[in-house]
Amino acid sequence: MQNFEYCNKTKIIFGKGTEERVGSETAQYAKRVLLHHSGGSAVRSGLIGRIQDSLKKARVEWVELTGVLPNPRLSLVRKGIEIVKNEKLEMILAVGGGSAIDSSKAIAAGAVNDCDVWDFFDRKKTADKALPVGTVLTIPAAGSESSISSVITNEEGPWKRGMNFQCLRPAFSIMNPELTYTLPPYQTACGITDMLAHIMERYFTKEPNVELTDELCEGAMRTIIRNARKVFSGGENNYDARAEIMWAGAIAHNGLLDTGRIGDWASHALDHELSALFDIAHGAGLAIMFPAWIRYNIKENTPRLARFAAKVWGVDGAFYDYEQAALEGVIRMENFFKSIGMPIRFADANIDPARIPEMAERAVHFGPVGNYRKLDEKDAVAVYNLAAK
Amino acid sequence: MQNFEYCNKTKIIFGKGTEERVGSETAQYAKRVLLHHSGGSAVRSGLIGRIQDSLKKARVEWVELTGVLPNPRLSLVRKGIEIVKNEKLEMILAVGGGSAIDSSKAIAAGAVNDCDVWDFFDRKKTADKALPVGTVLTIPAAGSESSISSVITNEEGPWKRGMNFQCLRPAFSIMNPELTYTLPPYQTACGITDMLAHIMERYFTKEPNVELTDELCEGAMRTIIRNARKVFSGGENNYDARAEIMWAGAIAHNGLLDTGRIGDWASHALDHELSALFDIAHGAGLAIMFPAWIRYNIKENTPRLARFAAKVWGVDGAFYDYEQAALEGVIRMENFFKSIGMPIRFADANIDPARIPEMAERAVHFGPVGNYRKLDEKDAVAVYNLAAK
Repeated sequence: MQNFEYCNKTKIIFGKGTEERVGSETAQYAKRVLLHHSGGSAVRSGLIGRIQDSLKKARVEWVELTGVLPNPRLSLVRKGIEIVKNEKLEMILAVGGGSAIDSSKAIAAGAVNDCDVWDFFDRKKTADKALPVGTVLTIPAAGSESSISSVITNEEGPWKRGMNFQCLRPAFSIMNPELTYTLPPYQTACGITDMLAHIMERYFTKEPNVELTDELCEGAMRTIIRNARKVFSGGENNYDARAEIMWAGAIAHNGLLDTGRIGDWASHALDHELSALFDIAHGAGLAIMFPAWIRYNIKENTPRLARFAAKVWGVDGAFYDYEQAALEGVIRMENFFKSIGMPIRFADANIDPARIPEMAERAVHFGPVGNYRKLDEKDAVAVYNLAAK
Repeated sequence: MQNFEYCNKTKIIFGKGTEERVGSETAQYAKRVLLHHSGGSAVRSGLIGRIQDSLKKARVEWVELTGVLPNPRLSLVRKGIEIVKNEKLEMILAVGGGSAIDSSKAIAAGAVNDCDVWDFFDRKKTADKALPVGTVLTIPAAGSESSISSVITNEEGPWKRGMNFQCLRPAFSIMNPELTYTLPPYQTACGITDMLAHIMERYFTKEPNVELTDELCEGAMRTIIRNARKVFSGGENNYDARAEIMWAGAIAHNGLLDTGRIGDWASHALDHELSALFDIAHGAGLAIMFPAWIRYNIKENTPRLARFAAKVWGVDGAFYDYEQAALEGVIRMENFFKSIGMPIRFADANIDPARIPEMAERAVHFGPVGNYRKLDEKDAVAVYNLAAK
């Protein structure tokens, strides 16, 4: 087990009706906030109205910035930073999923640091301060509600890049599973895939002695899979299934499952190029890339892949052949993704294989990706080719 | 799943050599601290000297208060409060296990609140402020290093009582598994039992929909059991086994495994009277009380007891008879406790059954104990009787 530091200051407020507390929680940090969201379903459902009522009651003023898109854009972040500075706002309140929260985090960092905000994503600067961010989560997926991460797309490239700094952990996150009942199934499925991928990225490590976090990862993955099946078998309004998924999505990415180990993250890097060039949902891209990544690495620490197959996908644990068990695990994972409506190959998502060389080159822009196995440009081409098969 | 709030601000600094950072971490909170420990093995091993060197380097001054005992005493807490007030100290630095940390937390709360500190334990007052506490953990057991709890014995009763307040979470905890190599086997075993008991208290809930936390509990328990077997099979100096146990001990009691559920805690209440009257180690008392508690409740939500037997103790999960499976689980648990040198019946620890009526009366002082099943005085007598068999 590796040495580690772990501190997660985000206050989680979880359960039915908790969005009513947004005003009183926000008032502990700020009198004037940027209310940041897509302007779409959360407005139509009346959630934004209820949040504004709660803010009013707590005497918190707000300026609204809508228009957040999936794969949130740098241009909107820049606009947010300008508003926050001009209006002297003290906090960003995100309503939505990972896109609204990531965009809010970028605004929060950009508003109080002198450099250009893209420098953080471009690995030119590090951030040790940001305005506080509060969130009302409506899409369990990215785990951004208690993570140190923000992923933004710079339209000029287009580049999709992430930053990871402790100061980006939200001050509080309000998580009401009821708010997720009305998500389109595709978004629910993308979210489930994203949180599974967050755990898999951590699970696939070369660190040999990580029993506790292995157990926690496996338990969280099994829970997500079981409850996804419930939601996709007529359980859209099953509170407990939605709640298990929502809480697991936060734990998947809050850093606990990293303790003592170093994750892989190659699949995320490879997916970022799918998202950047084809603007497909992050979860969908991961459902395509992860099986290909495992297939490419089938001879790399095969016992761990076999353990994954056994513990998470129920493949018979009494292995005569690790590789066969590992492959059976991938097939079950692919079947699971298909069963919730995810693509698992390029053709399922209209991704043009002709752009593989370009994507591979871009994916290794900062050097080889991954830690379980370092992938260079040639490897990236090979993994993309498996995904295109 | 029940609504919940969760926020854990303790910064965990985990791994080899991390105690060297105690000075720089402390200096972020205070210039003058109370250095609180037993004055025993941590002095002899040179740890206290190294900590003092680190404090000196960081220009932190300290006043020392030694003499912490297992089942830490109120009289020493009162003495600590006086020193902190007179010397205008700004932080308590605990070196040791749960006793040193619990004593430090009580001093930290007592020093900045006007009431008598015992009022917090006697449920007459609640605490919402305390001085910061830093810890260097040497005994993985109580989980106090990142919990909201403190348990103190008032010699006048003697009463052993706990308090639980968010303000009691340590600011930082330094956890180096190497520091645990030299623990006497009995202390290692008591610690292992204590952390297993912390998880079991949470695991035994009436809340039906808690899949994620069930999985996390089961995974953590299996990890503790497996690594305990390693340590007790010649692995005293097995870094990774010690590390798994140490980190699991913190997670067992940091509140994560409580999220969405209400635990039982009757076994802890029953053990507190064993500890108060016979001054036996908390872990040893729990090894006696928990099997008795399960046996007494064998018809109470038996499927959960059977699941515990299957998932934690490896009892065949294809039950024809839940009760039989549950009983097999208790027997395996008892055998495990015996294998690491724990008592499992009164006679093993020289506890006089004649005092059962007195203990039962004291255990329900604040009313019935437990949530999985409410136990009144008559129930308490019955559980103690099973433990005396």
